[in-house]
Amino acid sequence: MDAIIIAIGDELINGAGIDTNSSYLSQRLLEKGIIPRRHITVGDNIDEIAKVIADAINEAELVITTGGLGPTRDDLTRQALAKVMGVDLVEDARSAERIKEFFIKRSRQMSPSNLTQALKPAGTQTLDNDIGTAPGIAARYKGSDIYLLPGPPNEMKDVFEKRVFPQLPSCGATIQKTLHTFGIGESIIGEKIADLMTNTENLKVGTAAKGGQVSIRITAKADNLDEAKETAEKLAQQIRARLGNIIFGQDEQTLQGVVGDMLKKSGKTLATAESCTGGMLGEMITSIPGASEYFLGGVVSYSNAAKIDLLTVPAELIQAHGAVSEPVAEAMARGVKEKFKADFGIGITGIAGPTGGSAEKPVGLVFIGLADDKGVEVHKHIFPGERQAIRQRASLTALNYLRLKLST
Amino acid sequence: MDAIIIAIGDELINGAGIDTNSSYLSQRLLEKGIIPRRHITVGDNIDEIAKVIADAINEAELVITTGGLGPTRDDLTRQALAKVMGVDLVEDARSAERIKEFFIKRSRQMSPSNLTQALKPAGTQTLDNDIGTAPGIAARYKGSDIYLLPGPPNEMKDVFEKRVFPQLPSCGATIQKTLHTFGIGESIIGEKIADLMTNTENLKVGTAAKGGQVSIRITAKADNLDEAKETAEKLAQQIRARLGNIIFGQDEQTLQGVVGDMLKKSGKTLATAESCTGGMLGEMITSIPGASEYFLGGVVSYSNAAKIDLLTVPAELIQAHGAVSEPVAEAMARGVKEKFKADFGIGITGIAGPTGGSAEKPVGLVFIGLADDKGVEVHKHIFPGERQAIRQRASLTALNYLRLKLST
Repeated sequence: MDAIIIAIGDELINGAGIDTNSSYLSQRLLEKGIIPRRHITVGDNIDEIAKVIADAINEAELVITTGGLGPTRDDLTRQALAKVMGVDLVEDARSAERIKEFFIKRSRQMSPSNLTQALKPAGTQTLDNDIGTAPGIAARYKGSDIYLLPGPPNEMKDVFEKRVFPQLPSCGATIQKTLHTFGIGESIIGEKIADLMTNTENLKVGTAAKGGQVSIRITAKADNLDEAKETAEKLAQQIRARLGNIIFGQDEQTLQGVVGDMLKKSGKTLATAESCTGGMLGEMITSIPGASEYFLGGVVSYSNAAKIDLLTVPAELIQAHGAVSEPVAEAMARGVKEKFKADFGIGITGIAGPTGGSAEKPVGLVFIGLADDKGVEVHKHIFPGERQAIRQRASLTALNYLRLKLST
Repeated sequence: MDAIIIAIGDELINGAGIDTNSSYLSQRLLEKGIIPRRHITVGDNIDEIAKVIADAINEAELVITTGGLGPTRDDLTRQALAKVMGVDLVEDARSAERIKEFFIKRSRQMSPSNLTQALKPAGTQTLDNDIGTAPGIAARYKGSDIYLLPGPPNEMKDVFEKRVFPQLPSCGATIQKTLHTFGIGESIIGEKIADLMTNTENLKVGTAAKGGQVSIRITAKADNLDEAKETAEKLAQQIRARLGNIIFGQDEQTLQGVVGDMLKKSGKTLATAESCTGGMLGEMITSIPGASEYFLGGVVSYSNAAKIDLLTVPAELIQAHGAVSEPVAEAMARGVKEKFKADFGIGITGIAGPTGGSAEKPVGLVFIGLADDKGVEVHKHIFPGERQAIRQRASLTALNYLRLKLST
């Protein structure tokens, strides 16, 4: 079974927003063995939306759209489907009631425009939305199943998970397994596993690079889930044996999650001292629920005074070597470890740019200190890219050093 | 002139990655009056890629693809274009030299597979890539201009900006202007400006909501840039008059950028004390180059000990009211203001979930303290959504309170 996923919204086609819904839906469809063949994005233009929906119905048995079900005049997905099906829009009494209730429950005043969200093409079913005012719509037309879902990701997920996913047929099984590596280039990885990078109908291996992380994707298709899993896992084992410790995790795992699990397991605690990353490392660590078990906190020492007062970095050290230097990264890591009485302290200082670089200390220069009870190691890097890329790379690289330390 | 933008990669169609390239390209095309009509995403399948490229050539005068130019076996965009054009792949000598040089300059070893990146369909031109090993490709076929660009966003941008954008014709002008509001619901905003939400060929107004921010997009088309700008600005003025202080900025402006500018202008400084946001507020503030002029730093007080030791929050206060409470948010804001000798101190404490909530203190409950020389104001919120959404909403809401304070 093939699927086409359509994202609707001027903000997407004009570049003011990024479509994340299609990606989410693809992942879920694959779990049922349904192949997401294409993602299409169109603007808030009724003719374009109708054309893309009609074409998709001709090409795929399953068509899912997101967006364009809002209360404002530029929301035209309901109208577009009605046009494709050649029917009128009618009010769904139950949806109208639910929308009114939504506002009463929240003691908020309803805008009359919200009631347009209770409209549906005649002959279709509405799909309850439990967290927002835009119900989804389900239709069957010319042999295809069509689902219209709201655009806000949390509402889309709620409607999809409760009302659509359980209805979808299971068509054999496709399993995706992704192994994540950090700190080694894509072409080096590609070469190390060149002979394992098959590209057949039933087994595909690909790589994707992003911000220092290279991920190896295995896609295995089979008649049933167990068989697909076994094929994928067998290949994953071979790749793991080849790449060893370069691989830090798989699938949904993130570097911060893996490091968090390692800290939790070992009963160790961590504190961070951040300069150029400004809190990003702390944010990454605390994106993991339960991080308070091992993360004690940190200091964002954006000013020299903060480095001296809160992290006990000697003022002379900053004067002699500059705030972005190996000795200062070392003192920050040691200082924050002591201040928070943590087992590990990380100190990051660098030049994120775009200004502030020099021939001797270019933009992208970052020193990362990692302190434990035995001492402090400091690593020097020159990261490529722009301000935000440099900061992300620095934060992740610090986490990776801690991972390597914890795995020895 | 219509354009179709195609993103290529299994990681995109399978949901392991998100396409941000198409969005970037759309924005840039609109500036030349070229209408991005559709974004299409396909996987690493040569037949699918070829079909989508061939269809796009039939429908649009400009076709841009990103991705699939890497060195590994799953990179098939060159081959797909060659198939569409019915020609062979040939080596581009200049590109082969540049790729070899790339590795020599960086003292890195070249993988033989990198040389496949010097291949191009016969009769096409390569587009130099100054920061990576995948050159772009330019072709003219059946009356359409086709550009193949590398997938990594920094390389895509480099090749596009240097080699493609300057070549594109200017087709009249389309101007997009976006006004950003914070803290008010989309339907309320939609209602306040209902009569201004036109949707004609030459003037469109739409809204989009995300994480507490509602943006109002104006798209104006005209024969020349000045005329389009004037139309858009005239409507923007009407909307500004209607919404007043709810609007915090426009276009590329962000809340953190606007607040940063206000702090810089007023010569005031800021320090932050973050509990549930874990450094996210600091990260947002320091994402702005030059933030060191007004941001002194912060404390991530994830543990109670950190609140007491580093922020001088009285232990009894935490005992009496809990770490997530109005008095603790107040003490954190005041404590960090004093510790860093800043003009403003922000304190955030809350329950980001998914666990840790109770009937009395549910997940999403966040207290935000804002201290200045006159005292501390504390705001209580219950934010919807999941952990990361709650944290983002809390960080942005804190910035918005500071904005409102600075604008009085």
